[in-house]
Amino acid sequence: VNKPDDIPVPAVRRLSLYLRQLEAYQARERKTISSRQLGEALGLTDSQVRKDLAYFGQFGRPGVGYRVSELIGRVRRVLGTDRVSDIVLVGAGNLGRALVTYRGFAKKGFRIVAVFDNDAGKIGDRLTPDGSLCVRPLAEMPPLVESLGIRLGILAVPADAAQPVADAMMEAGIKGILNFAPAALQLPEGVAVTGVDLAVNLEQLSFRIRGARAGRRSDAAP
Amino acid sequence: VNKPDDIPVPAVRRLSLYLRQLEAYQARERKTISSRQLGEALGLTDSQVRKDLAYFGQFGRPGVGYRVSELIGRVRRVLGTDRVSDIVLVGAGNLGRALVTYRGFAKKGFRIVAVFDNDAGKIGDRLTPDGSLCVRPLAEMPPLVESLGIRLGILAVPADAAQPVADAMMEAGIKGILNFAPAALQLPEGVAVTGVDLAVNLEQLSFRIRGARAGRRSDAAP
Repeated sequence: VNKPDDIPVPAVRRLSLYLRQLEAYQARERKTISSRQLGEALGLTDSQVRKDLAYFGQFGRPGVGYRVSELIGRVRRVLGTDRVSDIVLVGAGNLGRALVTYRGFAKKGFRIVAVFDNDAGKIGDRLTPDGSLCVRPLAEMPPLVESLGIRLGILAVPADAAQPVADAMMEAGIKGILNFAPAALQLPEGVAVTGVDLAVNLEQLSFRIRGARAGRRSDAAP
Repeated sequence: VNKPDDIPVPAVRRLSLYLRQLEAYQARERKTISSRQLGEALGLTDSQVRKDLAYFGQFGRPGVGYRVSELIGRVRRVLGTDRVSDIVLVGAGNLGRALVTYRGFAKKGFRIVAVFDNDAGKIGDRLTPDGSLCVRPLAEMPPLVESLGIRLGILAVPADAAQPVADAMMEAGIKGILNFAPAALQLPEGVAVTGVDLAVNLEQLSFRIRGARAGRRSDAAP
C-alpha cells in the first residue's frame, strides 16, 4: 500500500470522482462494483480505474470487484475526509454567507466553525438561524486558528484584500486555502491554495450545448 | 479538423485547463508555447497535450510550438466562448446574489441578463449598484428566455425547488443548466446539466495538506 504522498496529483483528482460515484452507488444500496463499471460511469478506461485504486493496495476480487462500502472508507481515509475537519471562513459578503449554509461541506466532513470580516457593519451579524455562527472581527482569527489548531480556511473576500488576508491566515497556521477571490495568491512553500473558478463549469456547459445545437444528444458527463 | 462533437468529454475538460494556462502565458506576454511546456505546467504528458490539441487540426510548428494567441482563439471557438453568451439566473438568495457580482463569468464571456425568484419579499431588489439587474418574478422567466433565445441558465434555488424550476427553465428553451442546488436533476435528453460541488475542492485541499503534514512541500496543482 502506497503512502498518500506517492499518489500522483491527477489520480487524486480522480479519487473525488470515484468517491462521488461510489456514494451514488451506496445510496442505491449497491454492494459491489467492478473497475469496468466504475470506469464506464465516469468516462475512464477500466485499466485507469484499476491503476488508480491499486495505490491503496489490492483489495478488489476477480469476478466480484470492489466492495462499495470498503472502497468509500479507503478513499475517504486517503483524502483525509474520514473525520470532520474544522475550517474558518474569511469574508462575510454574499458568497461567504452562501457558503456558511452550503450543505455540501457538512456532507463531506467539513465544518465551518468561525466566520471573520473586517467590515464593522457586518461584525455581529447572525449567519445561522440558531445564532451559532456570527461574523467576528478579523483580528480574532489568528488566536482562534492557533488555539483550535485549524488547518483549512476559505477565502471569500474581494480581490484586493485577498493577499493580505491569505498572509494572515497562513501566519496563524492555516495550511490550505480554498480561494474564491478572483486573485492569484503568492504563498510560501508548505501552504496549498486551490482557486475556485466557477466560470469553468459554464464553459464546459457551453461546449455541451453546442453539441445539442448540432442535433446530437448532450453527453451525461459526471 | 474535427467537429466539436467528435472531441471526447475528458479532452473537453482539459481544454478549460489549457485555456486558463494559455491566458496566464498571454498575461505574461509570452508568444509561443510547446506541448511539453504546457503539459509540464498542468501535470500532463506532452503526448496527451498534442493529442488533445490535434482535434483542432495541426497548427503547432516543430521547434516553435503553438502561437499562444492563436491557440486561445481556437480553444474559445471550440468551447463556444468566443462570443458573449447571455444567461439567466434563478434564485436570488445569498448564492445567487454572489454569482451576479462574480467577475469570473464576464471575463469568460458570460453575461447574466436577468435574475428570477418566486419570493415576493425579494422581487424588485436591486442586485447591482446601477440598478441594471433587479429580482424579477419567476413567471417572467419563460417569456424572456423565449424572446431573447437564451440557452444557458444558472440554478441557485433550495434543493426542494430545484426540479420544478429546472423543468420550467427547460420548457422555456434552456439547453444547459449550471446547478448549484444540492439536488440531482432528472431532465430529458437534449438538456445538459452540470452540478457544482464546491466540497470537491475542499476534499482535494484536504489531501494536499495531508502531504504537507508529512513534511513534503505541497504540490502546486493548477
